[in-house]
Amino acid sequence: MRINGRSTRTIWPAADGSGDVEVLDQTRLPHVVEVARLSCLNDAAKAIRVMQVRGAPLIGATAAYGVCLALRDDPSDASLDGAIQSLLATRPTAVNLAWALARMEEAVRSLPPPLRFETAWRRAAEICDQDVETCRRIGEHGLELIRNAVPKRADGVVKVLTHCNAGWLATVDLGTALAPIYLAQEAGLDIHVWVDETRPRNQGAALTAFELGQQGVSHAIIADNAGGHLMQHDEVDLCLVGSDRTTRQGDVANKIGTYLKALSAADNDVPFFVALPGTTIDWSLRDGVRDIPIEERGSEEVTRVSGRTAAGDVISVDIAPAGSPALNVAFDVTPARLVTALITERGVCAASEAGLLSLFPERRLAASASTRLASRPDDARL
Amino acid sequence: MRINGRSTRTIWPAADGSGDVEVLDQTRLPHVVEVARLSCLNDAAKAIRVMQVRGAPLIGATAAYGVCLALRDDPSDASLDGAIQSLLATRPTAVNLAWALARMEEAVRSLPPPLRFETAWRRAAEICDQDVETCRRIGEHGLELIRNAVPKRADGVVKVLTHCNAGWLATVDLGTALAPIYLAQEAGLDIHVWVDETRPRNQGAALTAFELGQQGVSHAIIADNAGGHLMQHDEVDLCLVGSDRTTRQGDVANKIGTYLKALSAADNDVPFFVALPGTTIDWSLRDGVRDIPIEERGSEEVTRVSGRTAAGDVISVDIAPAGSPALNVAFDVTPARLVTALITERGVCAASEAGLLSLFPERRLAASASTRLASRPDDARL
Repeated sequence: MRINGRSTRTIWPAADGSGDVEVLDQTRLPHVVEVARLSCLNDAAKAIRVMQVRGAPLIGATAAYGVCLALRDDPSDASLDGAIQSLLATRPTAVNLAWALARMEEAVRSLPPPLRFETAWRRAAEICDQDVETCRRIGEHGLELIRNAVPKRADGVVKVLTHCNAGWLATVDLGTALAPIYLAQEAGLDIHVWVDETRPRNQGAALTAFELGQQGVSHAIIADNAGGHLMQHDEVDLCLVGSDRTTRQGDVANKIGTYLKALSAADNDVPFFVALPGTTIDWSLRDGVRDIPIEERGSEEVTRVSGRTAAGDVISVDIAPAGSPALNVAFDVTPARLVTALITERGVCAASEAGLLSLFPERRLAASASTRLASRPDDARL
Repeated sequence: MRINGRSTRTIWPAADGSGDVEVLDQTRLPHVVEVARLSCLNDAAKAIRVMQVRGAPLIGATAAYGVCLALRDDPSDASLDGAIQSLLATRPTAVNLAWALARMEEAVRSLPPPLRFETAWRRAAEICDQDVETCRRIGEHGLELIRNAVPKRADGVVKVLTHCNAGWLATVDLGTALAPIYLAQEAGLDIHVWVDETRPRNQGAALTAFELGQQGVSHAIIADNAGGHLMQHDEVDLCLVGSDRTTRQGDVANKIGTYLKALSAADNDVPFFVALPGTTIDWSLRDGVRDIPIEERGSEEVTRVSGRTAAGDVISVDIAPAGSPALNVAFDVTPARLVTALITERGVCAASEAGLLSLFPERRLAASASTRLASRPDDARL
């Protein structure tokens, strides 16, 4: 997508052919557009951990290149094992991380070490290109839902509420939840996006508003508290969010606060859609509230806010009394019952095991096996 | 309550006997404890408008003193009328403002102008003392609910979630939703408070955390997004919030985001209590979502955050891209069906017309009259 009119991805091989990788440093946005260079495994792991890159698909792509960087320095089995372990440990909730690392391992494990780096590099590039193609398909399927939405107001504008950033900055390009928005804009539909600020890290106000502004999409930032009121007053026609991990039965882990918006959508008959690549589905889990590991981050992300001074400097300020305790939970889980439908690269389906299996029939066998093992009533859906 | 160990109210007559009034300047908290002096009607109106004072009961008390300041300068009918009009126009949602102004008017309207100021001054002091007594009673009734709460965890701590600031800083002293907390602390109960940050003005992180820290109550600040997740994981035993306006049928206007927490409480079987003085009830309205006027404030409150730099200066920083549009809705309405009970100075009741009338039987006649006029199905509750 575009920044200041120029097309870019979020991650790309350094143009000097060194085998280094470059990323947009998202900790600096929206105030400064800056590129960070990843020159070793440690750079890649740190970029994920400190959230220079974030968003489940982009975390996966960065981890893939992290394996490349490790193998360039040392193509041994020990190096490969160490890279996978250290990248897996960076963040716990997004399952694409494990998916991308598994793809990398399967590409290189059986090769003699001297051949590993080049193969890994090609595989990482494929993962990136595949992500863009996946987003394009999610966008096309989601576009139909926007086309079919019936605005609740006479203005005829389709008003979409989104939470956090599931735009092109969360992926290699185009985005998941925002891909349908960008395609709707291309198609000339009249749309407006309510952008949840998304405390504590403000990915909505900082990243989604930046993306939409750069692409010229009509939008307004709202406090995370405001969505319920807007839905009560017919100011939201549909919700569209991303997912960091989706279970076999359609429970959705996404940025903290997503669950509250889903409750409000259900209470006000607003369709609640979740856009996700198939790589975000964790086929090994069913009950997301119980079983998806939820990341807890530093409390200073709650009590300290980063922003731009009148003089243009980017600094942090404390908003709470000195020494105030705070808890920082990064994700929550929205139960499938609150999700109107899932939008994947293979189409739109009900948020249920049956729905997901209709799009991913190759998972059916595993489902039967786990049904025999499990005894919870929701298995009756099968 | 105490600041740095010293007892204070939020509003008091200036000690020099000038007939000026002093307030804690809440726009400076928690970073700086500063007193603002109100020397004329305009000072009082501005203090309410820019939120040097806030919270429905304290807005009422400040408006009462605003009438005094106007009458001190000019005790004529025109001055009285002008004061009431200008104070009424400061903020639209809290109904205590109109209530306090009506009490002031009824005290002085029939008096010869030279006698008005002294009578007004006594009435304003009564309104303040009465507010403290009301809060004390709300605290006692709420304390019983905390005593009877059954913690969902083995730790035995009663964990309470609150939104915005309905503590002593929102009243003349003691508070509404936090009064039961302070009495529980006095009674030696083991409690912990989850403090919603309360974007966009951060009254939770700035004021509630300040209050609780100064009083030594165990607490932690959380993002407004986090309450749902905590409730899903049995980390909240009850919710306790205030109200800016409560309708005859028990719908509750409170700080934006309250509705989302009430939805989550209902979804997780967490009792949701609203503490309010009877002055907050608007007996003329039934359907709160439809009829309570909701204040819209400046968009810069969403995109700009005030805080303390490492050097100790209090400054504002922009968190969004320059020029990003934002919408700032200050309150939302929680329908009565989501409220477990209302806590008033007269006791605890169901959030319904029947419940409220059981505590305020003197309103029954008016209810019958309006029932004859109205034809909505919810009147069947009578």
